[in-house]
Amino acid sequence: MANTENSGGVWAPALTPLTKDLAPDSGRATAQVKRLLDGGCHGAALFGTTGEATSFSVEQRMALLEAVLEAGVAPERLMVGSGCCALVDSVRLTAHAAGLGVKKVLMLPPFYYKGMSDQGLFDSYAAVIDRVGDPELALYLYHFPRLSGVPITHGLVEQLLFAYPQTVKGLKDSTGDPESCAGFIARFPALAVFPGTESIMLDMLLKGAAGCITASANVNAAAIRRVYDAWRAESPEARELQDGITALRMVLQANPMIPVLKHLLAERLEDPAWRRLCPPLTALSAEQLRALDSGLGDLGFSLEAA
Amino acid sequence: MANTENSGGVWAPALTPLTKDLAPDSGRATAQVKRLLDGGCHGAALFGTTGEATSFSVEQRMALLEAVLEAGVAPERLMVGSGCCALVDSVRLTAHAAGLGVKKVLMLPPFYYKGMSDQGLFDSYAAVIDRVGDPELALYLYHFPRLSGVPITHGLVEQLLFAYPQTVKGLKDSTGDPESCAGFIARFPALAVFPGTESIMLDMLLKGAAGCITASANVNAAAIRRVYDAWRAESPEARELQDGITALRMVLQANPMIPVLKHLLAERLEDPAWRRLCPPLTALSAEQLRALDSGLGDLGFSLEAA
Repeated sequence: MANTENSGGVWAPALTPLTKDLAPDSGRATAQVKRLLDGGCHGAALFGTTGEATSFSVEQRMALLEAVLEAGVAPERLMVGSGCCALVDSVRLTAHAAGLGVKKVLMLPPFYYKGMSDQGLFDSYAAVIDRVGDPELALYLYHFPRLSGVPITHGLVEQLLFAYPQTVKGLKDSTGDPESCAGFIARFPALAVFPGTESIMLDMLLKGAAGCITASANVNAAAIRRVYDAWRAESPEARELQDGITALRMVLQANPMIPVLKHLLAERLEDPAWRRLCPPLTALSAEQLRALDSGLGDLGFSLEAA
Repeated sequence: MANTENSGGVWAPALTPLTKDLAPDSGRATAQVKRLLDGGCHGAALFGTTGEATSFSVEQRMALLEAVLEAGVAPERLMVGSGCCALVDSVRLTAHAAGLGVKKVLMLPPFYYKGMSDQGLFDSYAAVIDRVGDPELALYLYHFPRLSGVPITHGLVEQLLFAYPQTVKGLKDSTGDPESCAGFIARFPALAVFPGTESIMLDMLLKGAAGCITASANVNAAAIRRVYDAWRAESPEARELQDGITALRMVLQANPMIPVLKHLLAERLEDPAWRRLCPPLTALSAEQLRALDSGLGDLGFSLEAA
């Protein structure tokens, strides 16, 4: 049951399967989104970092969203990554999604220029919001400084919330740092804050997080959902369940996450096409595969059961 | 006179003037390219960092190139920035430029994902070269780790030169670090290496650089060209001329370069539209403007004479 009140809960940034030409594979992608939603996720985010969003053109991204919606996925259970370097690209993707009923967008700041001022980043977000002009737009700020190189500061959030209180709804903190995430939660009670890793999910929920948006949900949705539900039910089991998903996360992230997750899906679905990656991502080495298998074996992780 | 032999010399990464809607202004851009080529530059690079390339869509970039060519600019005096995060975008921009006779492309690596392997970056460049399939394509690697976050390593260059010796022609080193630039020159004599700042131009020319691709040429082309010509003529004046352009560069880069250069062009041309910037870039503050004016005044720099 989705927590429709605040879009909280467990969200998976969906992996993007590829055709031989390294374009998004709409059939496999749609099937994966449905598996995620049927398998425990409150929602799925298309075109996050895990979905290799920046490796695709605006047209490829729009086409894939349309295919997923045409397959019957409810737009309110989707979130779309729409933050690009180019202003008109961000506007186009955001307006496209919102026009199709997908009002929740997860937006990177423009990420080529570094060391930009809060004012410059505010102007970027404001230009997108103003040009899209959809009063139902729900903007989630995407804070992932390790990859974007462009942090979302508290000052920027404050300025955006002041100017667009009806639009700026949340923030994903992909730093993995509990202090960073807790800082956003404490400072901005109006925001739905999501850590980007389930390893700190319970701790952050207890502090007021809205849920979690985590790549691992592509292969471990049900277990992550059990932690969320146990927290909602104030069950004493929550901590032990949390320890289980944290242990798995440590194994998954010990090697490059996107290749790891695509490999595991290929294994689970017996579909080698799932291993395809868009460069600059590369396949796991034999050594990385062995380390992954060994780590999963130690945990007794079963691909079928997850 | 362009050094057509190896495309060496003084190149300006052209600033991109904007319309009120923050789209490239083709009329002003064409005029600027012509001024650069008439004013001392061997060539002009469209859609570098200085040209705010990443702030525009693929369509906007293609349309501007077409407008510049339609205005009669010779394609061999242009270089086009064509490296995007998305593979199909890089392919489209590169094929478009090459198809119009602009065979020289300055290519950033895909710059969202960080910490990628040389193999992954090789695969990215190789996919563009293979898909474009133009035997006349002249690829210049764009090394600007401070902004891209993705360095071009010696190992990557070696691998590319081995696989595509007819295509990989050069490299722009925008680190500003003479050791980095000299390292590429020494290791890869087959490459036309360009430092990204004229402050080290003479030193690098003496070590074997092909020239310089520098933002400052938007406002100081003639003086930079005089250094290059003095070096070609083995004139003893070269060092003193170099000291002059270095002193100006220090003033220009003491504040954000793109706003500084656009402000100076607006002043020179008495055209305030030239001050427009695409967010996240912001206009110079009053304090920055005063510091700039003061620095230029100390040098006796005249906007009209440059």
